[in-house]
Amino acid sequence: MKIKITGVGLYLPPKIETAADISEKIGKSVDWIIEKTGVIERRVSEIDVDQMGALAAKNALGKGGKPDLIINASGVPKQTIPDTAAFYQKELGYKGIPSFSIHCTCLSFITALHTAASLIHSRSYKRILIISSDRGTIGRNFNEPESASLLGDGAAAVVVERTLKDETGKLIYFDMKTFPKYANLTEVRGGGTNKHPQDPETTLADNLFTMNGPAVYKIARKEVYRMMLKTMKETELKRENVDWIIPHQASGKAVDAYILAGGFSEQKVVNIITKFGNCVAASVPMAFATAVEDGRIKRGDLILFIGTGAGLSVACALIRY
Amino acid sequence: MKIKITGVGLYLPPKIETAADISEKIGKSVDWIIEKTGVIERRVSEIDVDQMGALAAKNALGKGGKPDLIINASGVPKQTIPDTAAFYQKELGYKGIPSFSIHCTCLSFITALHTAASLIHSRSYKRILIISSDRGTIGRNFNEPESASLLGDGAAAVVVERTLKDETGKLIYFDMKTFPKYANLTEVRGGGTNKHPQDPETTLADNLFTMNGPAVYKIARKEVYRMMLKTMKETELKRENVDWIIPHQASGKAVDAYILAGGFSEQKVVNIITKFGNCVAASVPMAFATAVEDGRIKRGDLILFIGTGAGLSVACALIRY
Repeated sequence: MKIKITGVGLYLPPKIETAADISEKIGKSVDWIIEKTGVIERRVSEIDVDQMGALAAKNALGKGGKPDLIINASGVPKQTIPDTAAFYQKELGYKGIPSFSIHCTCLSFITALHTAASLIHSRSYKRILIISSDRGTIGRNFNEPESASLLGDGAAAVVVERTLKDETGKLIYFDMKTFPKYANLTEVRGGGTNKHPQDPETTLADNLFTMNGPAVYKIARKEVYRMMLKTMKETELKRENVDWIIPHQASGKAVDAYILAGGFSEQKVVNIITKFGNCVAASVPMAFATAVEDGRIKRGDLILFIGTGAGLSVACALIRY
Repeated sequence: MKIKITGVGLYLPPKIETAADISEKIGKSVDWIIEKTGVIERRVSEIDVDQMGALAAKNALGKGGKPDLIINASGVPKQTIPDTAAFYQKELGYKGIPSFSIHCTCLSFITALHTAASLIHSRSYKRILIISSDRGTIGRNFNEPESASLLGDGAAAVVVERTLKDETGKLIYFDMKTFPKYANLTEVRGGGTNKHPQDPETTLADNLFTMNGPAVYKIARKEVYRMMLKTMKETELKRENVDWIIPHQASGKAVDAYILAGGFSEQKVVNIITKFGNCVAASVPMAFATAVEDGRIKRGDLILFIGTGAGLSVACALIRY
């Protein structure tokens, strides 16, 4: 599908929280945190997801004018109703632009990118704004040290348009798989009909993030590796043809696995987890925006977005930037 | 876009709750309830949204085999993480099928239908299962009599595939508009980062459904009418060409407006609100499934799905069935 990412924007909350800052709250040493999660520091937002997302969106839109569709591709909404996408639009000062969410937790951005490509391919829209904004620190459970020291806040946005003649931009390949057998390995059980606040059995912990990290890592590593091999086979590409791997920043170990198990060279794998933690759905576009902004990613590069999300799902999208 | 709805399924919870049953809880007479909302009775589910949705999906899938994509198009999720679509898949006994949500409250189904059409058009998928399942009764605020007596539970599902040669099925037209100025007219403020359960200022009412019905009706009526006229103009169709209007069942008054203000004949406007209430995102596919199952809707009919949702959004999709 002939699509081009014409704008990229990042929003980093200014407040930094180091491993030392949360060490006491979770009863673990700084070394333990860094060894287990790879997160040296993270950002903590004092503004809500809609404002964060709108700031990233303004950077992505630049002077290119307003979009004709706004897709929210985040892990957790601002509120149950209405959709976060409407709140982004409010912050951006627009009206009348269709706005909805695509949700599959940490893979929301990759899925939204593929969906946006289809919507442009079918000539339904011309200029789609995808925003991923997550504030995971608000739902941390300090009684679960590993997941509590993983999460960080951040937002990123991209603008997707049709590729013009003579331009190379395209979405080459997309794949996704969901294995519901592992749905309960990563959860926020509240926030919906399952553990409703009116249900007297609902506990505070039900509203906080919980993850069986080692179990997820074991399954994810196998399934991601399998998807990566399939992607290379189907596209007839070799590892050396791919310029950049933009993985979901699930954990330091998960990012390193693309090097150690995946066989990609270290310079190609964009790592932002050490500085920003796991920012749920925002991690993938934040890693992408970081490498675009610092000049590493250039027009024409071949980029593999890949990762896992609660569900348990695995997805990847291969694009020519 | 050449797409065909090849399967339709409905799930109605067996438990019926009449206007008389809730009259005392909200301190209003049966006549008041029926006059204000048009809801004579509703279903109340004792199973959760994932089980409800899976039962509707089984009816929609029939003997046609498993889908290659599952889209959840509901108003409220089972829980924040993972996505409800993964839980549907678990209930259906499948594994490996990509699963995600499209969310824009009551318009989730109409938007998902258009998105599914694009995904089929781009040859990304062949057989897409869209499930809308909502259990609005769990979030009723009995201190807000009008909205509390509107909501009902139910689920419906459709299967969307590519149209074969010599078949007429297609999605002819789609439109959507979101006006965030009115985002706060219909809300569940909890369930996300805005009114987090850990925030001491979050109240129980923040987790319940709230709507300024008269204000929504006033804006919605105007915007829906405008969209309807635009749809007729762009497609060069007249009201008499449209065989069926499948409106979101927002309220008795909102459904009647398609007849009284919209100018469509009463027999063409499918009304299920009197029997099932406002079932959030499930209302549109439930009305569609009802009219397919009772034989009113036939192959080749021209159908206009149309409605409003929190956001505030307006959307419509015109299909040849």
